[in-house]
Amino acid sequence: MNPRLPQLDREQQVLHRIERARQRAARIREDRITLAHGSGGKASRTLVEAVFLAAFGNPLLEPLEDGAECTVDGARLAFTTDSYVVSPLFFPGGDIGDLAVNGTVNDLAVTGARPLHLSASFILEEGFEVEALTRIAASMRAAADAAGVQIVTGDTKVVQRGKADGCYITTAGVGLLDRPVRLGVVHARPGDAILVSGPIGEHGVTIMLARGELDIHAELASDTAPVHGLVAHLLDRTTGVRAMRDATRGGVATILNEIATAAGVGVVVDEDAIPVRTEVRGACELLGIDPLYVACEGRIVVVVDGAEADTALAALREHPLGEAAAIVGRVTDDQPGMVLLNTGFGGTRVVDLLVGDPLPRIC
Amino acid sequence: MNPRLPQLDREQQVLHRIERARQRAARIREDRITLAHGSGGKASRTLVEAVFLAAFGNPLLEPLEDGAECTVDGARLAFTTDSYVVSPLFFPGGDIGDLAVNGTVNDLAVTGARPLHLSASFILEEGFEVEALTRIAASMRAAADAAGVQIVTGDTKVVQRGKADGCYITTAGVGLLDRPVRLGVVHARPGDAILVSGPIGEHGVTIMLARGELDIHAELASDTAPVHGLVAHLLDRTTGVRAMRDATRGGVATILNEIATAAGVGVVVDEDAIPVRTEVRGACELLGIDPLYVACEGRIVVVVDGAEADTALAALREHPLGEAAAIVGRVTDDQPGMVLLNTGFGGTRVVDLLVGDPLPRIC
Repeated sequence: MNPRLPQLDREQQVLHRIERARQRAARIREDRITLAHGSGGKASRTLVEAVFLAAFGNPLLEPLEDGAECTVDGARLAFTTDSYVVSPLFFPGGDIGDLAVNGTVNDLAVTGARPLHLSASFILEEGFEVEALTRIAASMRAAADAAGVQIVTGDTKVVQRGKADGCYITTAGVGLLDRPVRLGVVHARPGDAILVSGPIGEHGVTIMLARGELDIHAELASDTAPVHGLVAHLLDRTTGVRAMRDATRGGVATILNEIATAAGVGVVVDEDAIPVRTEVRGACELLGIDPLYVACEGRIVVVVDGAEADTALAALREHPLGEAAAIVGRVTDDQPGMVLLNTGFGGTRVVDLLVGDPLPRIC
Repeated sequence: MNPRLPQLDREQQVLHRIERARQRAARIREDRITLAHGSGGKASRTLVEAVFLAAFGNPLLEPLEDGAECTVDGARLAFTTDSYVVSPLFFPGGDIGDLAVNGTVNDLAVTGARPLHLSASFILEEGFEVEALTRIAASMRAAADAAGVQIVTGDTKVVQRGKADGCYITTAGVGLLDRPVRLGVVHARPGDAILVSGPIGEHGVTIMLARGELDIHAELASDTAPVHGLVAHLLDRTTGVRAMRDATRGGVATILNEIATAAGVGVVVDEDAIPVRTEVRGACELLGIDPLYVACEGRIVVVVDGAEADTALAALREHPLGEAAAIVGRVTDDQPGMVLLNTGFGGTRVVDLLVGDPLPRIC
């Protein structure tokens, strides 16, 4: 019940809420949804705030973290969901199935939770091959086993031929927050260090190349992986972690912006410190995109107390998924809300949220 | 870890599991997904068993109830998910938004849980009107408020024009099982009574008519409603409830078959006892479909100890959503696995699972 609406009856409240949502939605310049609204960048952010936060707004949703913290009967739970519409469904290093499991496992893990139970809901296209669906399901099971979670509930819908590109999957997950920490980008403060757990952009570039529309060939595979073990190892070794995010849609640049905005701080990163494989850098140059904006599916960005930066780096590097981890930047009190990149050539440029979507349907 | 595979390493296990899933998938006669696989009937059942249960199989999933029971840190949780692909998105009595909230609230409620937290994930079509999305979000908030739940986490993906029919929504939900009961169709036993909480088929027929493809007009609206209050009232008043299901896709007939199959019992229902509004009966006659197979979105089927049948009926009728509740049949030890209908004309016929899908995309 909205405390500002004590005198209104239910119907009036609904009308009022619709009106308020409409007013906020006016902040969306477009009348219609564009691909950019699914990019993870500026348009996504506006859509989420103006439509979904305006309508659903509650204290559990408002942090807009990868997972919400809910206390149920004394248990501190993390709860999250993601839909997967990746095209193509099968790609080097994975498929929509393990992506859907790892993505939700990772969204739970970066809140500090131990991932436990997943749901899986399928929207299938009439005519989709049963054999392909069987491969996807087997791949989901293998990913669930690797992450130590169970798929305990699900649903299947079928839509007519021409809709749904074969298969869309939505997973949701429940985890247990059994550590005495509360993580969130809002906790970043000047002096903190920013780390990434490995080379960035492999997933997004792999998907682009797998579409075969470009005459580029590279020995690349998606980095899709469950990061719960890496995160647990990091949290076992350091006490100074403020926030973690898995750098999916929108890439590392989007997360850096979310840190700067949520905490009201400046973020400075050093281009030369950011690990990018030669193949990814080369493909990005040919595609005309910046690897900082390209999705990973098994890499995390960590904000940690500056005094703990080296400990955190060592902890990440001890884990197979963090061998190429690096300290890439720091949180400052200059220019709050902004992300600045020190380029390899000695210059500085602003790293903003993405406006369009150069890589649609990568997850 | 599968106890039957102790000597195999992880890769071998995955291969073995894929092979086993393929063998089970061989039970699906079709090579490709058909609309019937989304009907809730026979083909849905085969798909779920041969593909999803074969791949994901675990003790929490296997009951195939509307929600899974998971114990997390001592808390008994119910966890459920459903995707919504209803067409059209707006219809008399509701829209895809309140349907998506009520459906998940109801799946939690019929497990005996108190619904608490929902996730909402959107797959939007490029070009979908922002104003329509805003209306859907407002309607979800109103439904969440009415059910006493919060939408605490979510996701948005956008697919290219021509896909996703505007908007697909997947909700998942977490509830608390705070009553000392464990419900499930597997618990049905001979002598039990079967009740429905109100007139059936209104949602499905409303959707069919809203498509405007048929020249039939009727004063009908979807029965979409959250049944958590009705369920709580029933459980407060009676101790003999064995199982509840909300009669959505596949209708009451599908649930009766699930009872018969899961518990290995016979089910006998009396056609004359089943509440069906005149408008629904008339439309179903013109459409050539049986109201027993038509979806409701605010009606439950209850299996209760025969000695408690009248108490349960009285309890349902005390609640606004159960005013037209009725005892419609009984569980027997004759012909286990079968559902028999005593027709209004004194005959008896078998009520089987639906083979095709006369009403695709109704939820």
